[in-house]
Amino acid sequence: MYDTIIIGGGPAGVAAGIYAARKKLKTLLITTDFGGQSIVSDDIQNWIGTKSISGFELAKNLEEHLRDQEEVTVKSPEKVLEIKEKGGLFLVTTNKDEYETKTVIITLGGRHRKLEVPGEKEFDGKGVVYCSTCDAPLFAGKAVAVVGGGNAGLEAAQDLVPYASEIYLLTHGSALRGDSVTIEDIKKSNKLKEIIFNAEIIKINGENFVTGLVYKDKKTNQEKEIIIQGVFVEIGAVPNSELVKELVDLNERGQIIINHKTGETSHSGIFAAGDITDVAYQQNNISVGDGVKAALSAYSYLLKRK
Amino acid sequence: MYDTIIIGGGPAGVAAGIYAARKKLKTLLITTDFGGQSIVSDDIQNWIGTKSISGFELAKNLEEHLRDQEEVTVKSPEKVLEIKEKGGLFLVTTNKDEYETKTVIITLGGRHRKLEVPGEKEFDGKGVVYCSTCDAPLFAGKAVAVVGGGNAGLEAAQDLVPYASEIYLLTHGSALRGDSVTIEDIKKSNKLKEIIFNAEIIKINGENFVTGLVYKDKKTNQEKEIIIQGVFVEIGAVPNSELVKELVDLNERGQIIINHKTGETSHSGIFAAGDITDVAYQQNNISVGDGVKAALSAYSYLLKRK
Repeated sequence: MYDTIIIGGGPAGVAAGIYAARKKLKTLLITTDFGGQSIVSDDIQNWIGTKSISGFELAKNLEEHLRDQEEVTVKSPEKVLEIKEKGGLFLVTTNKDEYETKTVIITLGGRHRKLEVPGEKEFDGKGVVYCSTCDAPLFAGKAVAVVGGGNAGLEAAQDLVPYASEIYLLTHGSALRGDSVTIEDIKKSNKLKEIIFNAEIIKINGENFVTGLVYKDKKTNQEKEIIIQGVFVEIGAVPNSELVKELVDLNERGQIIINHKTGETSHSGIFAAGDITDVAYQQNNISVGDGVKAALSAYSYLLKRK
Repeated sequence: MYDTIIIGGGPAGVAAGIYAARKKLKTLLITTDFGGQSIVSDDIQNWIGTKSISGFELAKNLEEHLRDQEEVTVKSPEKVLEIKEKGGLFLVTTNKDEYETKTVIITLGGRHRKLEVPGEKEFDGKGVVYCSTCDAPLFAGKAVAVVGGGNAGLEAAQDLVPYASEIYLLTHGSALRGDSVTIEDIKKSNKLKEIIFNAEIIKINGENFVTGLVYKDKKTNQEKEIIIQGVFVEIGAVPNSELVKELVDLNERGQIIINHKTGETSHSGIFAAGDITDVAYQQNNISVGDGVKAALSAYSYLLKRK
């Protein structure tokens, strides 16, 4: 019987684990991997207190800090398949075992959103990619489209500048939504061929590999094809909340609705933090702070039940 | 005219400054010092991602990361004396100058709470101290009382173990409130003479220097004196909110009431984060996460006003 089971190994989960350990909670952390979505970033410049760190290095630091806590048992890689309530306690079933716990802290984060257009699935990994840091080098000398006008799209374009021959940046909006500092940086590059606004992606063409991207200009209703060999899909994240959708209240985007002061969900004994929640901004440092809140609230909850 | 003025140089202020810079806001950060209250900690083991760091080193890292942002002008040491609204803008007056800004982010933290008993003021610095990390070495071979049953009190006792001849730990409560890991650690020490529960501090005795502490046992109403040469007062923090008490809503403890999702205060254009707010738990990582929220919300606010 655990005091708390933390599900997820990103910044929120690790922060919750370290604080649960400080409170001497018997803690189990179950995750498929460590570091969260930013593990693919080459150079994180806004991890507060550290001028520059790679996502990989940050993930390693987080995992090491967590594993240093003797009160925390880590199961990784292991995947949670089901969480069931059972008389005020919770039964957590994974692909390997079953565990009982008094509280659960959900920090499963999000995953890349898909375009859901013809050709996307067919050419996945054959020109259609979702991780610019991982895949930009594969597109050396090629023309590439980046879909997404937020930070993820802009950063993908930045990642591509040293490699691609030309970059098209497409957004469904009438303006870019990312950080001004990143927008300015991107606009300086002569690799940036065009920023295409009001673009609705229609399909991805190809034979063995991507050959083009068809979009509709939402203002003129005209369809156009750009000839490219790669499509970087950077249109945001979907919360990994399927596992708990019957247990806690979600908002219309599928995010867990939390009390942002405490990390409490709608379900007594279940807490949540990070990108899986209805946080206003998805940032590593916010996930960490909210992970701390969730662990301390789980501790308070356990004290009150005693 | 600044886009935002951040007041305070602790973790919340620095985080807000770094994020304001990423959004290319013209930013001024005014502070009397950097690092916040934990600058006096010898060994911080719960700064997430770092197994161990001193408060001094953390403060230095935070200041360096902030000063690396070219969009941020830093005024330190400089003290804000007044904030006035003026037609939807704010006028910030310091001991050195006057500045205009569109938004304000308040991250002034808290300060040590006093006992408010006879002798406290008289013997301040003559045996009565508020910073164990700073002052523990001065009490080598002496008997010392620590007042406070929360983490601050426990950590003061830990700090004193290598130095003091004997340690009395007094709390007004009927139990210690700090982290179990710290409580267990303290109880192991043979320097810990006694934990005195239900203690109401009555006065501090002394001549040139502290000689004793008088307390009342709230259960028996008996007054007792313990013979000690030092009193470490570790009974929590008071928010530094005097400056804004006419501008924003405070709770009964004087903390700024914020929207914990966004860092908004009751006053449009004023945001807050960290220990000055009605946060559930006062922790460096929470201050950082909430500082990020405040800066991103100030940015959204400015975009909407354009």
